[in-house]
Amino acid sequence: MKISRVAIIGLGLIGGSVGLSVREMLPDVATTGWDADADVRARAAERGLAGMVCDTVAEAVREADLVILCVPVGAMGYAAEAIAPYIRPGTIVSDVGSSKRSVGEALAAALPEGVVIPAHPVAGTENSGPEAGFATLFRHRWCIVTPRDDTPPDALAALSGFWEGLGATVEIMDPRHHDLVLAVTSHIPHLIAYTIVGTASDLEEVTRGEVIKYSAGGFRDFTRIAASNPTMWRDVFLSNRDAVLEVLGRFTEDLSLLQRAIRNGDGDTLYDLFDRTRTIRRSIIEQGQDDARPDFGRKDH
Amino acid sequence: MKISRVAIIGLGLIGGSVGLSVREMLPDVATTGWDADADVRARAAERGLAGMVCDTVAEAVREADLVILCVPVGAMGYAAEAIAPYIRPGTIVSDVGSSKRSVGEALAAALPEGVVIPAHPVAGTENSGPEAGFATLFRHRWCIVTPRDDTPPDALAALSGFWEGLGATVEIMDPRHHDLVLAVTSHIPHLIAYTIVGTASDLEEVTRGEVIKYSAGGFRDFTRIAASNPTMWRDVFLSNRDAVLEVLGRFTEDLSLLQRAIRNGDGDTLYDLFDRTRTIRRSIIEQGQDDARPDFGRKDH
Repeated sequence: MKISRVAIIGLGLIGGSVGLSVREMLPDVATTGWDADADVRARAAERGLAGMVCDTVAEAVREADLVILCVPVGAMGYAAEAIAPYIRPGTIVSDVGSSKRSVGEALAAALPEGVVIPAHPVAGTENSGPEAGFATLFRHRWCIVTPRDDTPPDALAALSGFWEGLGATVEIMDPRHHDLVLAVTSHIPHLIAYTIVGTASDLEEVTRGEVIKYSAGGFRDFTRIAASNPTMWRDVFLSNRDAVLEVLGRFTEDLSLLQRAIRNGDGDTLYDLFDRTRTIRRSIIEQGQDDARPDFGRKDH
Repeated sequence: MKISRVAIIGLGLIGGSVGLSVREMLPDVATTGWDADADVRARAAERGLAGMVCDTVAEAVREADLVILCVPVGAMGYAAEAIAPYIRPGTIVSDVGSSKRSVGEALAAALPEGVVIPAHPVAGTENSGPEAGFATLFRHRWCIVTPRDDTPPDALAALSGFWEGLGATVEIMDPRHHDLVLAVTSHIPHLIAYTIVGTASDLEEVTRGEVIKYSAGGFRDFTRIAASNPTMWRDVFLSNRDAVLEVLGRFTEDLSLLQRAIRNGDGDTLYDLFDRTRTIRRSIIEQGQDDARPDFGRKDH
């Protein structure tokens, strides 16, 4: 089974990056693209995010071996319904959503048996829209594929090969486990970042100007995360509710312990945690998951 | 009043950066340095963090016009006691601690009237120790100075001029207000980052290897902050307890609201917050407080 034509539905940061990456890394693969927003289609065509940006979803998916839905997870079911009448037998339908159990169910409900293979490239930036994508977004990143019971092995191999062709390393995972892992490594960090940025901007005693001015003390890293696409993230929290609430419960328990330690002047509890968390950072640097330069090598260093 | 000799007590990230910065930016100013740890003194001498790294604290401060205490805030009182017998009349004693009300009181209790001017350069990285400092750490950063009632204006002007000489912009602030502003912009972000990294590493269902592997989804930014010096941060939370608990209370209230919104499937509440927080990020970029490149311009982009 060979993928020689890919349809990208949704031309924002991820969809656009898929298109640019295919052009650079898999020049023999043709791409078509479509977005529900005509203005986005026009801007995508201008940047050449797909070989052909189509006017209708039918045109975009008709000849495709692989359709990748790059829309917010709350729109996955609608997107699947929209493409269902037009895909030909044998086409793989995949996605890039940050939650996998509910998305898999939504896609499977709209599409024929054996067609759906949910996937999640663990990559992104705080920017969004058709101007935000770039060809190297997936390079040296993980792409988690969560096959379903009815997924044909050759289709799974073809999809995995496609992502490897874009520079990603593919990992096969159970969708429920994916959702828990991502709740920890991505969803809860985003929720917390959004919350603290909101809290800071609502304080009466500290002006917003002061918050911005002195943000270099730690806050600004949270603002970067909290600048991510609001529609995408609203949908992630709603679609991965169970895992998010589970991990959030653990987090608030742990935070209460620290709160009490601060109130009681219990420095040992604080020190023990702060010392322990350094080893995690060390492992992330060692495994090449982040930049070892202090402060990410921000300008002026 | 002219500062021509500066004693740096504590030769870690901040103290070392003060020394290197003076050498580069204020070549006419002499520096002496001392650290309670003999091994740190040896490494500091090797890197040339001060013009002269002294064997005793007496020797380091005896001729100084300005003594800067660059030790964890919990050690400020002890450091002030240690230098008190040896400073000459007219010497300014300042510090670089992240909380100002309790530090100001600790210093004033140990030193003569009119000598103490607490200060806080809002700059740092996740690295610590005598190898971590660099000459440009304070450039284009704020330095908040919190004079006391007994601070002589010429001493305040001399200290402000010194920090401006290292490239910082000086802001005069009431110590209590400083502590609240920094609780929001620095202390609570650190506390939250430490907590979530701890929560993640304690989950039974998700291995530490998985957390590290998929950290690019947001978690890794928290691990950077949670790799900061544990002694320094333990002391910050204990010494700025009131403001930290105040802001933490607001944060947990806000988080509970989002938790309920997720539980109830209330997407509008989520979207409204997520949309609002983007504007803060935009202001931070506009005011040059952070790098506008996506993902801070990490490698591979």
